[in-house]
Amino acid sequence: MTASPLRREPLDGRLLEKLKELLGERLSTSAAVRAQHGRDESYHPPEPPDAVAFAHSTEEVAAIVRLCAEHKTPVIPFGTGTSLEGHVAALFGGVSIDLSQMNRILRVNVGDLDATVEAGVTRKQLNEHLRDTGLFFPIDPGADASLGGMTATRASGTNAVRYGTMRENVLALKVVLADGRVITTARRARKSAAGYDLTRLFVGSEGTLGIITEVTLRLYGIPEATSAASCAFPTIEDAVETVILTIQSGVPVARIELLDAAQIEAINKYSKLELRVAPTLFFEFHGTETGVEEDIEIVKAWAAEHGGEDFRWATTPEDRSRLWQARHDAYYAALAQRPGAKGLTTDVCVPISRLAECVSETKQDLAQSKIPSALVGHVGDGNFHVVFMVDPNRPEEIAEAGRLNDRMVRRALAMEGTCTGEHGVGYGKMDFLVAEHGEALSLMRAIKKALDPDNILNPGKMVRL
Amino acid sequence: MTASPLRREPLDGRLLEKLKELLGERLSTSAAVRAQHGRDESYHPPEPPDAVAFAHSTEEVAAIVRLCAEHKTPVIPFGTGTSLEGHVAALFGGVSIDLSQMNRILRVNVGDLDATVEAGVTRKQLNEHLRDTGLFFPIDPGADASLGGMTATRASGTNAVRYGTMRENVLALKVVLADGRVITTARRARKSAAGYDLTRLFVGSEGTLGIITEVTLRLYGIPEATSAASCAFPTIEDAVETVILTIQSGVPVARIELLDAAQIEAINKYSKLELRVAPTLFFEFHGTETGVEEDIEIVKAWAAEHGGEDFRWATTPEDRSRLWQARHDAYYAALAQRPGAKGLTTDVCVPISRLAECVSETKQDLAQSKIPSALVGHVGDGNFHVVFMVDPNRPEEIAEAGRLNDRMVRRALAMEGTCTGEHGVGYGKMDFLVAEHGEALSLMRAIKKALDPDNILNPGKMVRL
Repeated sequence: MTASPLRREPLDGRLLEKLKELLGERLSTSAAVRAQHGRDESYHPPEPPDAVAFAHSTEEVAAIVRLCAEHKTPVIPFGTGTSLEGHVAALFGGVSIDLSQMNRILRVNVGDLDATVEAGVTRKQLNEHLRDTGLFFPIDPGADASLGGMTATRASGTNAVRYGTMRENVLALKVVLADGRVITTARRARKSAAGYDLTRLFVGSEGTLGIITEVTLRLYGIPEATSAASCAFPTIEDAVETVILTIQSGVPVARIELLDAAQIEAINKYSKLELRVAPTLFFEFHGTETGVEEDIEIVKAWAAEHGGEDFRWATTPEDRSRLWQARHDAYYAALAQRPGAKGLTTDVCVPISRLAECVSETKQDLAQSKIPSALVGHVGDGNFHVVFMVDPNRPEEIAEAGRLNDRMVRRALAMEGTCTGEHGVGYGKMDFLVAEHGEALSLMRAIKKALDPDNILNPGKMVRL
Repeated sequence: MTASPLRREPLDGRLLEKLKELLGERLSTSAAVRAQHGRDESYHPPEPPDAVAFAHSTEEVAAIVRLCAEHKTPVIPFGTGTSLEGHVAALFGGVSIDLSQMNRILRVNVGDLDATVEAGVTRKQLNEHLRDTGLFFPIDPGADASLGGMTATRASGTNAVRYGTMRENVLALKVVLADGRVITTARRARKSAAGYDLTRLFVGSEGTLGIITEVTLRLYGIPEATSAASCAFPTIEDAVETVILTIQSGVPVARIELLDAAQIEAINKYSKLELRVAPTLFFEFHGTETGVEEDIEIVKAWAAEHGGEDFRWATTPEDRSRLWQARHDAYYAALAQRPGAKGLTTDVCVPISRLAECVSETKQDLAQSKIPSALVGHVGDGNFHVVFMVDPNRPEEIAEAGRLNDRMVRRALAMEGTCTGEHGVGYGKMDFLVAEHGEALSLMRAIKKALDPDNILNPGKMVRL
């Protein structure tokens, strides 16, 4: 949580000149542009880069990296700036490479259910493009993030319980390495046993091993039937038990989201809904008409056993959109509860058998603090989030939220969980990696050193060298 | 395809003494044991190790590796010896570490749908153990391979079209590194964004980056309904087109296997079946009763459009077992067609839209050769195999099969496919990696050097240094 760089040297004037020669107007050193690129949606102190390069092609990214490598200057990839652990902060200065203008959809293979896009294409842009094909890309972290950024942070979100995360849905990547060489990590075949899994090595590497410039993704047929509902429960434990039984019985639910009472209160106001203020599950089912009906019957039975009788169905596509938009806006809704507050958000993920215990203990801990907070989660994966609404001008609040976060992570680790299910490490969770991985961290360090010996790729993130 | 080692020094007597001290009777230098451990099920010339160490625990594996590391002596992990590209051959001598006695099922978490096993546990052993839990582990490469070996070779097989490969089904690993340190690659949570994906780095690394001693696997509920059938088609193209339409329409078929007429003839004799001698698909459907019925209706409609009317249903569990056992024995059935022949088997995988073209051109190429061959495949993934029945005493036959293999791989690569969908690289397909990965191979090399600087882990495999 500290942004004080170990060393920060001014950008070499010759490097700046060469970059200007390469990019012209697309190299910016304006204070506003720099500030925007050093900041994500997290509470971590932002740190602006010295310059921002707006790239138009893989070749340009490679040229920028080559120049920066010559000067041993940091490069930090930037997509939409929606990361949550300070991933884009230029802790050691350097050049932010903005990939948002690399937004061409290069190829859609309807027959193979895949698409290749430039890193700056966002998930919504891709899905709009796919509209007439009958296909869609399911991974949905809430924000309309770039697919390059989603790959780099191993994003997941509401649909992951059914369709997996970016880990399962990236087929191949084009990547610029630390010395400017360009590689492709894999072929377009669905499976391969030909060599080390470079694709998965870059998925979730947060710009510290290379800069992702193209992504080949799996697509899925739009289901014949989709059905969504919300259901309130007497207690948060009842809601979680219903989730556990649903997952254990193998129902292929597409989404199963938990919101605590505080969060429901917030979204009722923010999104103008009239949900009962109680711990609530949001569900979505995908399949054939009869398949969805079967799934619903099973889930209703489990819910009923735990006092969840009040299923409210979002029957039209508009109602469904409204429900899920409200879920996506949960973070902003929570913040709006306390005007002027900043969100300190965190996530953990545990084996589903430990979820009830983990959520329950966390809620008890939160209840003892004066910091307002709300709990939401992709609970089908055992993954949940807490947002603390802190007054940014009161360091004691930030410190207190930090302590609550710390206890939540240690609790998850003690239950064989992970310090982050989907937000990533950035520079916010580096210390927890030691507790989580132990000796394995030395392996991550060895890989980082082998692939980026001068430590110019997003330095100060993920792995402490 | 050459087994001539670059250097092969005799095992240091002091190392042998220390290993004997550690393992007693479980360290063998007998010619028979050594020969058995240098040989897999492939046509590649075997190469016996200098000694075989039968390990009983991760700590023992670590101790063996530490001793071998001190003497810069190669270590080659060994499971059941069922690999197909010479993975276990001791090309530079050294110590084979046999993990088959590490066969304890350490933990089954029914609620979390996962299990942790020692590397020597085989897939059938695990499934027998799971019998009363209502769960199963689906990955089925045919052979009753060890789960450590299946992980190390990124195995897949008939069920992968529905359940994925080992890539998707390993949650975490315990691994002994090149210097004897022991790491765990991940927690038991279903997803994580905490650091580089070490699990996937070791899945498919063929013993060249570390020795896998424990595997945590995903399990699945045994489906309520299972239905299997075979169906003959007028031509191999008709069969393949039916596969493509099935996959593209999103039917969650559990298995969809292609066997050419030569293969059907072979298994009719070998497995005493009476299938029509024609290009044939074997299907299996998993789901609820109504779900399976829906899936079957869709597939029957696609098949009918391509002359596939003759569905023969395996209605009892015994009939189903017989059908799939016959499929698994296809390799042995093919070999039995030519007494004294050895099998030269290979596999490729292409995007499904190119599958018909790739199979068709391959069949034409095979038809022009005098070497008998049979084609089978996990075609739902775009993956197919050819087995050449060669006379091992006629080098010209092996050379001719090698040329056919070479053309098949180049054809698959030209269609954006991979040189191996599931058999792996071993020392049989190293040259193809260059054509497949280009510059990315240098990255694999850098990773290998970073993790195994003295090149003692299964040297001479996967990546040429």
